[in-house]
Amino acid sequence: DCTADPPYLPPTATNTTERLAALRGAMRTHGAHAYIVPSTDAHMSEYISERDARLGWLTGFTGSSGTVVVTQDKAALWTDSRYWTQAERELDCNWELQRTRPSEPLLQPPAVPVGGNVSLDPFLFSIGTWNSYSRALHGSGRTLLPLEINLVDQAWGDQRPLPSSSEIYSLPAEFTGSSWQEKVAGIRQRMEQHVRRPTAVLLSGLEETAWLFNLRGDDIPYNPVFYSYALLTNTTISLFVEGSRLSAAARESLRSGCPGPLCVELQGYEQVSAHLRRYAQGNVTVWLGTEYTTYGLYRVIPQEKLLEENYSPVMMAKAVKNAHEQELLRAAHVRDAVAVIQYLLWLEKTVPQGQVDEFSGARHIDALRWSEHSRGPSFQSISASGLNAALAHYSPSNGSSRTLSAREMYLFDTGGQYLDGTTDITRTGGCPGTTCSPHGAPQEAYTRVLMGNIDLSCLIFPSNTAGRTVESFARRALWDVGLNYGHGTGHGIGNFLSVHEWPVGFQSNNVPLGAGMFTSIEPGYYQDGEFGIRIEDVALVVKAWLGTPSDTSLWQHQSGEEPFLTFEVVSLVPYDRNLIDLSLLSPQQIRYLNSYYERIRALVGPELRRQRLEEEYGWLQENTEPFPVSGAATATAAAGTLALASLLSVLLSGLGA
Amino acid sequence: DCTADPPYLPPTATNTTERLAALRGAMRTHGAHAYIVPSTDAHMSEYISERDARLGWLTGFTGSSGTVVVTQDKAALWTDSRYWTQAERELDCNWELQRTRPSEPLLQPPAVPVGGNVSLDPFLFSIGTWNSYSRALHGSGRTLLPLEINLVDQAWGDQRPLPSSSEIYSLPAEFTGSSWQEKVAGIRQRMEQHVRRPTAVLLSGLEETAWLFNLRGDDIPYNPVFYSYALLTNTTISLFVEGSRLSAAARESLRSGCPGPLCVELQGYEQVSAHLRRYAQGNVTVWLGTEYTTYGLYRVIPQEKLLEENYSPVMMAKAVKNAHEQELLRAAHVRDAVAVIQYLLWLEKTVPQGQVDEFSGARHIDALRWSEHSRGPSFQSISASGLNAALAHYSPSNGSSRTLSAREMYLFDTGGQYLDGTTDITRTGGCPGTTCSPHGAPQEAYTRVLMGNIDLSCLIFPSNTAGRTVESFARRALWDVGLNYGHGTGHGIGNFLSVHEWPVGFQSNNVPLGAGMFTSIEPGYYQDGEFGIRIEDVALVVKAWLGTPSDTSLWQHQSGEEPFLTFEVVSLVPYDRNLIDLSLLSPQQIRYLNSYYERIRALVGPELRRQRLEEEYGWLQENTEPFPVSGAATATAAAGTLALASLLSVLLSGLGA
Repeated sequence: DCTADPPYLPPTATNTTERLAALRGAMRTHGAHAYIVPSTDAHMSEYISERDARLGWLTGFTGSSGTVVVTQDKAALWTDSRYWTQAERELDCNWELQRTRPSEPLLQPPAVPVGGNVSLDPFLFSIGTWNSYSRALHGSGRTLLPLEINLVDQAWGDQRPLPSSSEIYSLPAEFTGSSWQEKVAGIRQRMEQHVRRPTAVLLSGLEETAWLFNLRGDDIPYNPVFYSYALLTNTTISLFVEGSRLSAAARESLRSGCPGPLCVELQGYEQVSAHLRRYAQGNVTVWLGTEYTTYGLYRVIPQEKLLEENYSPVMMAKAVKNAHEQELLRAAHVRDAVAVIQYLLWLEKTVPQGQVDEFSGARHIDALRWSEHSRGPSFQSISASGLNAALAHYSPSNGSSRTLSAREMYLFDTGGQYLDGTTDITRTGGCPGTTCSPHGAPQEAYTRVLMGNIDLSCLIFPSNTAGRTVESFARRALWDVGLNYGHGTGHGIGNFLSVHEWPVGFQSNNVPLGAGMFTSIEPGYYQDGEFGIRIEDVALVVKAWLGTPSDTSLWQHQSGEEPFLTFEVVSLVPYDRNLIDLSLLSPQQIRYLNSYYERIRALVGPELRRQRLEEEYGWLQENTEPFPVSGAATATAAAGTLALASLLSVLLSGLGA
Repeated sequence: DCTADPPYLPPTATNTTERLAALRGAMRTHGAHAYIVPSTDAHMSEYISERDARLGWLTGFTGSSGTVVVTQDKAALWTDSRYWTQAERELDCNWELQRTRPSEPLLQPPAVPVGGNVSLDPFLFSIGTWNSYSRALHGSGRTLLPLEINLVDQAWGDQRPLPSSSEIYSLPAEFTGSSWQEKVAGIRQRMEQHVRRPTAVLLSGLEETAWLFNLRGDDIPYNPVFYSYALLTNTTISLFVEGSRLSAAARESLRSGCPGPLCVELQGYEQVSAHLRRYAQGNVTVWLGTEYTTYGLYRVIPQEKLLEENYSPVMMAKAVKNAHEQELLRAAHVRDAVAVIQYLLWLEKTVPQGQVDEFSGARHIDALRWSEHSRGPSFQSISASGLNAALAHYSPSNGSSRTLSAREMYLFDTGGQYLDGTTDITRTGGCPGTTCSPHGAPQEAYTRVLMGNIDLSCLIFPSNTAGRTVESFARRALWDVGLNYGHGTGHGIGNFLSVHEWPVGFQSNNVPLGAGMFTSIEPGYYQDGEFGIRIEDVALVVKAWLGTPSDTSLWQHQSGEEPFLTFEVVSLVPYDRNLIDLSLLSPQQIRYLNSYYERIRALVGPELRRQRLEEEYGWLQENTEPFPVSGAATATAAAGTLALASLLSVLLSGLGA
């Protein structure tokens, strides 16, 4: 309430009056009638640094996604429903919370005079967002105006955090799939093979440069990347980065090919636009991925010299892990499983004493991950008990943290960064209610979420199947009783890179699934005010074994076609036995579960022994005991895992006929 | 071979030398360097009249889809792979067959000089096709030029068939879901409720006018539609049609509301462009569906006065059948089942004598459909024996027709037009091989196709689920052994309208599934040179019954949300028992099959009796005998059909806790 004097300010909110005044001053100076501020950075990063938290500084809102529009007399924030409560607590009286879709900040424009402009920093918006805004303003008499000076930064002034100055280092060869020179050669080969014959590839995504040059940094929390751009042409390589930050070894490696086509020219981070503008004057074709390129860089290149695809060839190459990268990720998940198993055992002992709360729990598992090759958590740990777990993106804070109880279900969604891989796993446990009835509603919900995880994990599907066309298999067991979940079913993951690594996953803007890709599989169910369930594993897309060629020869359909694929789950932590209602599982699902548990024993058991974690070893044996399979086996011989057997019998009789 | 003199002309090909010469003359007259000819008409119809078969006349190619590009010294046809063999047989030496994707006729442009143009008739291309061509030419130095005079028609001259002059009639009220006045009122309501407040809706699809005004004609084979456009504004209704063709009753009905907002002004079919141009000069917003509007009409309207969506509000309204339309379609399917059952019995008797071939079989089932309300087949009957069935779109001709044999599988995909509904059903039968082994490869393939049909048919899913995200359930049983099929899984269907009725279906450009929509479900499997299997039913999307509100109240997730949906199969013909390998079916699938057979008996049995078809009645009883369900039932209680039972038990115990 700003009419009160002094205006009332809830303790959870930030006083933004001065910041807004400063921004509005800058707007007047630059003739901006309205100014849009996004929540991302110049690289379309999911996680951003403090220095790029412009929206957060301006509004006090700490949610991870939102869009702000400011005029001389209005200030509004758009964010999606999961953040509405939080926004109400954090915004002061200068702000209006808009509950429309975040993509629609301009469909209901604030008081901008007709003939006026809506301004923004073109280096902070994707090409797609720019286009949607300009479509929204189309015919409204208002124009969308790119302002290359960022007005929030002007208002922020010297209070704005400085750019990171920490070291950018080379990833040791043992932790890379191939040398950066091999990767560059591979990308140049894709350029030559492309029908449009592009002369250069522009890289804006921070993971792209980090992966291509086998470099890492710590500019962004949880993601070991560093601020940079790259322009890879058929004869030159330009890396735009603050050169003084490179370690001696890194500089050495990048310069080893100089002079020559494998010489990396270092240029200032800020030089990218000017350099690109010069380059684009030649007879060139620049290949870029529209999803990670800002409109600011895009507009530098004349339309006819652009080769636009959703994702750059580097993004596409990175998505398919080679044999060594696969081994690295598998190894990281074995060590990660040890930490999670230690945590589960620790919970069994400490929760009954009421000594653990969500926050201390999160701190404990983060600590357990500090082991070989560890570089900390891969995202802010989600640790949610009881009704808190029904909030999709809940993270506990030291102040407000619920005590874990044997009577409540507990969900933790955590992951680690290791030099050899990035992990992400969610387990839900605990027995709600006074007794641990095997047939309670929470048990059925948990079991159906697990059935979904299993049904998708053991699915056999053709190469190049789009994830969105198979993710329903993770929902069907819930759909059967009218339940569902409101989030996606999975996302790609990197080798010591982003925990959410595009373009792999199950959403409509993901690329088709191919062998060598890693994705999470994470169905869930959330009952408001009561409990939340999510079961998340990381899986590798592998070729499905459908028998020897001679077996399948009867099926001509197969000949000369791409192989069929399935998933190999690389997260290796058993599920909560107390929450599984076996009577709901099909024999095929139970068989799959038992074979998965066998693999856990075979892969994690020895590591526990190596680390002398005997108690954990015992816990693992207990919790991976095979489940009884009912006599129903033959009746569901159609099931995927039995397909080969049934196929063989068919073929034999078929040949006999 | 055109070098030979006289050039050799295979009997299956047409001599197109004169036709091409005439077209090239017209091209020179109008300065067209290249000219594109599509296979569709000005309404984006799937089936077209002889008068619109421009591509067929020019090339001699009789396939249903293709694109032609002609220059002064080149003539090329693009068509998809299923037509390549046919095209080679039908094209004479003037033509090159291009095997690239049909969407790419311009990516490899024929000899067009830089600075030259590629011309086309803008009234024969969708907006999307125009855009893809203009993108393809972008930067090539060639321009895409719309020519409103159709050059093929000029070359065709007075040989071109005349426009249809047959009567356009009103559908009797008993066969319509609501009066055309009610439908118009409903569309005007959608206009008022739309945020953009459109002032008019433009209708180009022939089904749209036919449905909106409850009129039918016979301008196009198999589809009871007539050439027309309509412009429905908030105060007026213009129907562009050859008025003299309207029956007295039709004219009476359309004029009944004159003068006034429910008065239909009749204008000449050719007047639509001029009228639209005049209308678009006012302060108006024209709502149109881009999928069915040609670029020719689209370009008449200034960009800022357009409201573009994929499908017009009429298309969207038509997609959801009201209670009466649902009853009509159900009734048509009961009578259609009688015809198909008669055919199956007839096949059992006659095939062993070797008296039936594919062509006479097709003629026979077409004849059997001539009964109450019948208006002939809804598409050209597919009747394919043995290896012919492996060709996706095979239809027999009198000349070349394979004799049906008890030793081969036989696939027939047929449908009927009835005043109350349109039908489309595929059954595959017969026992391949010398004996009828229940476990042969063909039986497994048939059984897995059936499992796919069942798994999708009994799926429970949330409202507004996109078909493409669930169609994999129809493929999974095949995927499990590395098999698949290359076509879509289903399409919408009309009430005495198109057998392929957009926008309903399982493809990416279909709209989300909603209660009241009808779609086919038609998985298949095709083994080149051996056999083909397809099992197609039409199903109605209905609300899924998940128990009474009190049952579901425990699942808060449900409260206030859209209901869950499932399918009610309305095609009522049993499958071939000899081809079902029961050992592959899950108890749930067998239970579903038995409940479906119960419905067939309950709905079709009485109709057979009414028609005194006692022998067919006996055949139906035999062929709908329930299958034995193994003891596996409880082990798969998670299955959809059992969901309620298991849910109830859970809830009781849950409440007890």
